[in-house]
Parts: sequence; structure tokens; C-alpha cells
Amino acid sequence: MPNINTQIRLASRPSGWVTEDNFTTTSEAVPDIGNEQLLVRNIFMSVDPYMRGRMNDVKSYVPAFQIGEVLQAGVVGVVVASRHENYAEGDYVTGMLGWEDFSVSDGTQLRKVNSGSQPLSYHLGILGMPGMTAYVGLHTIAGAKPDDAVFVSAASGAVGSVVGQLAKIHGCQVSGCAGSDEKVALLTESLGYDAAFNYRNSESLPKSIKDVCPKGIDVNFENVGGEIFEAALWSMRDFGRIAMCGMISNYNDEQLQPGPRGMMAIIGRRLKIQGFIVTDHPDACQEYVAKASAWLNDGKLIYHETVADGIENAPTAFIDMLQGRNTGKQIVQLSAV
Amino acid sequence: MPNINTQIRLASRPSGWVTEDNFTTTSEAVPDIGNEQLLVRNIFMSVDPYMRGRMNDVKSYVPAFQIGEVLQAGVVGVVVASRHENYAEGDYVTGMLGWEDFSVSDGTQLRKVNSGSQPLSYHLGILGMPGMTAYVGLHTIAGAKPDDAVFVSAASGAVGSVVGQLAKIHGCQVSGCAGSDEKVALLTESLGYDAAFNYRNSESLPKSIKDVCPKGIDVNFENVGGEIFEAALWSMRDFGRIAMCGMISNYNDEQLQPGPRGMMAIIGRRLKIQGFIVTDHPDACQEYVAKASAWLNDGKLIYHETVADGIENAPTAFIDMLQGRNTGKQIVQLSAV
Repeated sequence: MPNINTQIRLASRPSGWVTEDNFTTTSEAVPDIGNEQLLVRNIFMSVDPYMRGRMNDVKSYVPAFQIGEVLQAGVVGVVVASRHENYAEGDYVTGMLGWEDFSVSDGTQLRKVNSGSQPLSYHLGILGMPGMTAYVGLHTIAGAKPDDAVFVSAASGAVGSVVGQLAKIHGCQVSGCAGSDEKVALLTESLGYDAAFNYRNSESLPKSIKDVCPKGIDVNFENVGGEIFEAALWSMRDFGRIAMCGMISNYNDEQLQPGPRGMMAIIGRRLKIQGFIVTDHPDACQEYVAKASAWLNDGKLIYHETVADGIENAPTAFIDMLQGRNTGKQIVQLSAV
Repeated sequence: MPNINTQIRLASRPSGWVTEDNFTTTSEAVPDIGNEQLLVRNIFMSVDPYMRGRMNDVKSYVPAFQIGEVLQAGVVGVVVASRHENYAEGDYVTGMLGWEDFSVSDGTQLRKVNSGSQPLSYHLGILGMPGMTAYVGLHTIAGAKPDDAVFVSAASGAVGSVVGQLAKIHGCQVSGCAGSDEKVALLTESLGYDAAFNYRNSESLPKSIKDVCPKGIDVNFENVGGEIFEAALWSMRDFGRIAMCGMISNYNDEQLQPGPRGMMAIIGRRLKIQGFIVTDHPDACQEYVAKASAWLNDGKLIYHETVADGIENAPTAFIDMLQGRNTGKQIVQLSAV
């Protein structure tokens, strides 16, 4: 086992877009563990849009990252030493750990994962928070019904790519938008979307939505915010539901952006807009993982990843993801399985 | 019985604020009725914020008023002639009829009211749509719980003045805002509000809300939109609910106004924003009328009206209401009870 632990720390808070300068790489000896602790060799690490918010010094549902501290991320790893009664050497675990090769944990917010039928990295994606988020948003929050017209923004992303497939399994009509022609092709040719468009080429977002979703939207799974959200709002049908999952278009903004124009539609069309955080819904998450594992085995769910290699490339992978360069879930491989 | 029917028609569509010039007054003979029709002598007529929206030529959940046509309103009246099997001379009825002294109806959207224990005009207010709207928004839509902090905009209006009282009966803490010191005094001294402020004097709406609702808002009953809605959104507590009832601040706008800044709070605080229209909830309305009649008899509910006199004064009463000059429900008396 190597005895060096490479770590990525927050060097400065970004102003607007994140750059490499906001990170610093440090090394230290692999730490010893105390009583009731365990040491995890990190294998895969997730980079996610919500992390951008934690780089700002603002109050939110998760605390801000602190300058000089090791950044946090969802990780899958293997226990390499344990003085914790619930964990043994060789256990595979997932949870919030660090942007680093090795993490010490007291077992809090950690859970064991089955290393069996699916690749370990899936626990950071389709079997982890992004997949659970898709399920909770579509079913628990939006109450999607068969035949509903579901529209997904950032449809090819880690969450969106699952939302579409879950909606198809449920008997919905599914359309969405993404930021490149390649992603749009992936949506319709591989991920089961009925129709999709490239929002970067759209001359009129409401018109583009009408083209892919002619009857209007019953369920909007909102990952983007901004103009795309406004166009979706204008396209909602009576009694439509909007699951507010993310607003990636606003995460880099220094100032608060105005909301969509035309919010009167919320009343006239009796819309429901509901924000959610997946960790509030543990029962639905558990229900989902069981279903999704079976769907993956049956080939009803498919999954795409973009994998960067090595902890030192985590900042670039994160920046690429924020700029939409990834397809599917962006992860970073830190060590061999 | 007089044989002249005075009527108010839409002369032109308002551009911005409504003026007297947008109306024209005409007279004709009181009409004869055909088979399956009845003639109502209108006694009280309601003027309401939603009518402003119907003056625009836009698609909405109710059709736009047409130029040259008699305007529509909620009316209470008495049947003076009937060739309809369900209605007899002397029946008191309420429903959507015209801005006029006499209306012909085929019985559609009409219901009989009890002329007994409460004044007839109450069926246009606390026992009619505004009261039902308060009940549906607070309970069916927002799911108010005892001890919730409820914040109401346009708190002294036809709906808001009932929301506060219903919330107090339910065991909530209630605060709100209104547009004059007199209205604020009415709220706290007479309508049971725990605290209220005059938004026209506020230097910072979020700070004013914090003063009257220090822990933050669990339930926002939104009647106003615009800056007041934005400040309420910023003041919401985790898992807060916003019942979107109206956006009177936007009704006169020629262009679509942007929504509130800071909509990220919807996700971080897991908020639910839901628009509603009272007529979608007939069961809850019926439940409410029974409860409210009892509460009025017991003195648990009180009610204020501003009454204008005569059909020719209906346009002025409507304009005054839009500018906030009324206290409680604005109605127009058209004939003696």
C-alpha cells in the first residue's frame, strides 16, 4: 500500500466560473486511525453540480467548503483498516468522504455496498445519489402518471439520463434538452427519449419545447433554471408539476438572478413547483435501488459514465462537468478496484 | 318593478391601470325570459381583482371580457320570474351574472342561497368565493398545521382578512402586510392578526417580514406577487408551502414581469409553490361554508365590507379596489334586499 495520501483542497472561492486556481494539491502520510474509526482506500469519486454551491460562502442545506480544507465528495472505496465494529477490512463502502486517495471515517454517513452484479462506480451514479434523485423527483415529488408528457432539462446528465429511462419504464412520453448534438443523439438513440433538442442551437426555447412536446408538459424535471426553466414554465399544461432538482445555470452567478417571467401561469394553470433534496427521502431511495438493480440486470436501464483518471485530475473533471463537457455521470477513478 | 335595465359594458381594453373610460353605461328594457330561463333582480354585485385579467385579450382559465359586451360578476339576487323548473319566484340565488340591474339566466353556474342567518351580501364574500378561496388555499393547498407561521400579503383584502382568521382558529401564528396604517390597525386590532406592517412604509420588505414573523414563514398565502412575493420567498423556512392565490401587483402590467430573485431557495429549503383556483375544489368549499356559517354565528369569524351604491358606481368601486382603497370585501349594492 502506498503511504502517501494526495489531497485536493479549496485554495480560494471562485468568482463566477471555477478555475484550476481555486484548487491546491497537497500530500501527507496516510493517516493512522483511532478507536471507532476506519480507513478507506478511495476507488471512485463523484463530481457533481451541487459542489459549486458549496464553494460559495453562503448558508445552504449543506455547509460551505472551507478554504484550506480538503474538499468533500461522494466516494466508493474499500476498507483497508478498521477499528470500527461495523466495518471489516475488505468491505466496500460509499459515502461522503474527501477528494483524496485515503479517507478516515467514523462510519457516519457511510454505507456498505454490494460489489456483486454491478460495477462499483454505479453506486456514485445510477445506483447512488443521481439515480435516487431521478426516482424521487419523478415519482415522490412530481407524481408522474403513465401517459404524462415529461420534459427534462440537462437530459443527458447524471440525473437526467436516468429520469428519461424511468419515465419510459413508467409509460410516460419523454422529451428533453441538452447542450450538444452528440448528447441529443445519445438521448434519442440510446437513452429512450422520444424527442430532444440542442438548446444551444435553439432560436426560441418555447418553440423548441413545443416541437419535442407538442401537447405541453405535464411533468418538468428541472435541472437547469434560467431561460430553460422559463420556457418550460410557459409550456406547462394545467395541473402540471415541476420537480425542482437543480439550477446549474445559476450556480456560477455572483448575484441573484430574477426568476422566470410569466409566473401568473402558476395560478391560471394550477401548477405545483416543488424543490427537493434526495436525502430527505430514504425509503424511496431504498425502494429505487432494489428496482434499479433488477432493471440494470434486465437491460431495461442503461448507464453512461465519463471517467477521469487520478486524484490530480479531479479539479479538471469537475470544471469540465460544470461546462457540460461530460456525457452521463462524471466520475474520477482514484485507484484500482 | 322598474322596466329599465342599466348595464355596464367594456368600452376598451385598459392599458396599464383601469380608468372610467374603459367602461360605458347603457340602458335597455328589462328582457323577457324564454323556456328554461329565469330573471334575477340583482341585489349585490362583487368586484374582484381577477376581473382585471379578464379585461386583457389573453388566454386564461376564464375567457377574456369582450369589448361592447356586458361585464360579468358574482352576483346575489332574487328570482323575479321563472320558466325554469328548479327556480321559483322569490328564490335567492348567487352566481356569475352581469354588471346590470337584471340578469337572465338558464340556471347554469347558479345556486340557491339561504337568506336566513347571515346578510345576503356575505355570499359574495366570507360565505362566497373569497372565503372559500381562503379556506382552500390555507388547508387544501398549503396544508397549514397548528403552530405554523402563516404570512399573508394583501392581508386586509377580501381573501386575506379571512385567511388570517381561519389560521388563528387553526392555531397558527399569523402575520401579514397591507397598504395603509389603517388597514394594519384593522388587522391587529380587529381581525386577529398577531402582527402586521404597512408595505408602503417598509424600507426593506425582508426585514419587515422578519419583524412580524421572526422565525420565518411556514405558509405564505400569496395574493400580491412582485417584490412582496420575493421577500416572502426569501423568508421561507425549510419545507415551507406557498399557496399562490393572486398576483395583483402584476395585473396591470403590459409586459411579463420577471419572477423573484433567489429561486434557488426552492431547492435548498424544499419549498412547495402551488397555484390554485377555488372552483377546482367544490367539496372543500361546501365543507367551508358549513363551518364558516357556524363560526359567524359564534362570533369566531368577523367580516368587513365596503359597499358602493348603484350599478352606475360599479366602475369606480372596481378601480378603487384595484388601487387598494377598500377595506375588506368591495361590493356594489344594486337594489334593495
